[in-house]
Amino acid sequence: MGGPEIERLIGMLARLPGFGPRSARRAALRMLQQPEARMLPLAAALNDAARAVRPCRLCGNLDSRDPCSICTDPHRDRSLICVVEGVGDLWALERASVHRGLYHVLGGTLSALAGTAPEDLNLPPLLARIEQGGVAEVILALGATVDGATTAHWLSERLKPLGVTVTRVGQGVPIGGALDVLDDGTLAAALRARRPA
Amino acid sequence: MGGPEIERLIGMLARLPGFGPRSARRAALRMLQQPEARMLPLAAALNDAARAVRPCRLCGNLDSRDPCSICTDPHRDRSLICVVEGVGDLWALERASVHRGLYHVLGGTLSALAGTAPEDLNLPPLLARIEQGGVAEVILALGATVDGATTAHWLSERLKPLGVTVTRVGQGVPIGGALDVLDDGTLAAALRARRPA
Repeated sequence: MGGPEIERLIGMLARLPGFGPRSARRAALRMLQQPEARMLPLAAALNDAARAVRPCRLCGNLDSRDPCSICTDPHRDRSLICVVEGVGDLWALERASVHRGLYHVLGGTLSALAGTAPEDLNLPPLLARIEQGGVAEVILALGATVDGATTAHWLSERLKPLGVTVTRVGQGVPIGGALDVLDDGTLAAALRARRPA
Repeated sequence: MGGPEIERLIGMLARLPGFGPRSARRAALRMLQQPEARMLPLAAALNDAARAVRPCRLCGNLDSRDPCSICTDPHRDRSLICVVEGVGDLWALERASVHRGLYHVLGGTLSALAGTAPEDLNLPPLLARIEQGGVAEVILALGATVDGATTAHWLSERLKPLGVTVTRVGQGVPIGGALDVLDDGTLAAALRARRPA
């Protein structure tokens, strides 16, 4: 339909999350009409990022610096570490500008179904940081799922003996959320987490 | 949030049709977790396609060969040329395997609103092919829009004096389509196009 180069490009684009064959064709066609302006810059950006970006040896964040720009930021509170499952969660918290401390990316959650055991998680660098001292509180910002809760419970038991305060993010009604569209579990969690008005 | 390389990659991905900032972040993150398997091959595919793919000098199709693989296919009926607005339309007809002749990509339609005039369309190569002889029929496969209809009417008047049969694709109820969800214009076109049962 235009040679192997086009077929290959469409096939690659169709593997992007959120893309299927139809949207991949549309994107390929749009780019092919402006190859200089659209394709070569994207190719360069992909090559640059693939070459430069690495997981941070301290926290697991993806960055072109190692240690990452968060771990080396002198304005961040080094006594406060927020544990997240993945880098996407870290990005979400950074976009919201709600955490002024450091992070630790666990790289997954314990999961009987997926066969994820404690040794599969990126825990040793976090233990090392806590053991070096200076960490007062570890905030567990894991998803409100069965696996998230299991992992939070296990981590909490693992970290408390090291002499740090371990907390979990609150659960309940999302801000802007209407009660009548929430699932039963969220409603139950919101009732359990009730506070004086 | 991870250095300029990540920001730039997300910005580029967000410009793809069908992508926004959110899906661009998701795609970037997924790729960054497997740079060798996902980013470098896509970068290579983009570079290869940008370098190899050009519009066919005869029909306007995008291909890594010029003349394109359709124009040079000895099994296609060279007396039958299907005129389409864009390469996406050509791809759609090729996927459906419903046209055994050649194509001509007009590169747009006449549009008072968009300011597209006859001289903005890729017409001369089509006229040249017809004047060389051997073309029996030109099928106008343009969209069933005001601009498509205007362009079809104008093209028809322009091509008929050259001694070719000019036809237009049928309009009516899409196959698999229910009548009660169709707009008034389609219903009217379907009634006008009625045939003995």
